[in-house]
Amino acid sequence: MDDLILHEDHRSGNCYKIRLTAALLGLPLERREYDIMNGETRTPDFLAKVNANGRIPVLQEGKRFLPESNAACWYLAEGSDLIPADRFGRADMLRWMFFEQYNHEPNIATLRFWLAYVGEANLTPQQRAQIPAKRMAGEEALALMEQHLASRDWFVGDRCTLADVSLYAYTHVAEAGGFRLEDRRNVCDWIKRVAELPGYTAMD
Amino acid sequence: MDDLILHEDHRSGNCYKIRLTAALLGLPLERREYDIMNGETRTPDFLAKVNANGRIPVLQEGKRFLPESNAACWYLAEGSDLIPADRFGRADMLRWMFFEQYNHEPNIATLRFWLAYVGEANLTPQQRAQIPAKRMAGEEALALMEQHLASRDWFVGDRCTLADVSLYAYTHVAEAGGFRLEDRRNVCDWIKRVAELPGYTAMD
Repeated sequence: MDDLILHEDHRSGNCYKIRLTAALLGLPLERREYDIMNGETRTPDFLAKVNANGRIPVLQEGKRFLPESNAACWYLAEGSDLIPADRFGRADMLRWMFFEQYNHEPNIATLRFWLAYVGEANLTPQQRAQIPAKRMAGEEALALMEQHLASRDWFVGDRCTLADVSLYAYTHVAEAGGFRLEDRRNVCDWIKRVAELPGYTAMD
Repeated sequence: MDDLILHEDHRSGNCYKIRLTAALLGLPLERREYDIMNGETRTPDFLAKVNANGRIPVLQEGKRFLPESNAACWYLAEGSDLIPADRFGRADMLRWMFFEQYNHEPNIATLRFWLAYVGEANLTPQQRAQIPAKRMAGEEALALMEQHLASRDWFVGDRCTLADVSLYAYTHVAEAGGFRLEDRRNVCDWIKRVAELPGYTAMD
């Protein structure tokens, strides 16, 4: 693998997923910071060279650019213990990663961003009107995780995979979005397990 | 592989992705229909046996259940030409599949569902308020696809992969959500290419 550069905003859980994956694998990762609040990922230069979709994270390897956090984690982890060795396990891991991007991130990460970074007073009326639906959908995602973890330590198989890394990123900081974690005992125990993994690195 | 059963609603593009993948691979797939408009995926029986997340599609193989459309496509296609043979290509394919679930489906598929199935008159005020933002985000997703296809026939590499299958499902019926495709020539040409693939099956 060529030198790895992570184009990121250090506050983003999507970026942190990639840092955590690299840390668990012992891979060095150069970091390049952008402030998404100031539109630094929407400049003509960024759009032309890094990601035409105007978003971070983007993983750069040599001259190739890979957007989408979970795809970047997959790229780093292929062939490692972070991806199950069996076919159904791999698909089941991807199932949780798609769940994360569809049911979890748009609710839990977005409320964290709106409430902890943008600030409730600065939200548009349209954003404000979406809060109850996002709150409910985020709670449903956490409830499904709690139920799934009732009978197992990790989301897929018997060890940490990218499913855990992906879901951990925004779950462990969900309280910044107004979600209460302490009643979800299985989720809290799983959060502790992730943080005890060899090589673990904390979010900035 | 054991016998495959697709738990689905035939109108859903997410379900169609899996049927299209199976058709391109020549895999037989038994179909079991649920009406999502009548809550048939939220019954206690469905939640306990098929998917605790209350959603279709779910791919069943023997006694194992796999939710999430793109994960099911991956499961079916592993080891086939629908997944690139090189590491970066595989990750790049997943990148477009995550883009599909994050930037494309929640806008283009949701507007199709709201406008063509629920009916604009039956939307809640909250849903109605989200239409302009979803319209804009859906157009942005289509514009990115149009731009990407300017210099290539397929999303990743030089042949059809799951990235194409995944994005095709809701793109080729986007007009039912009020999106105008005819000015996006590259997307229209690509839609024709997908429909000409050996084994192709149309959406019901």
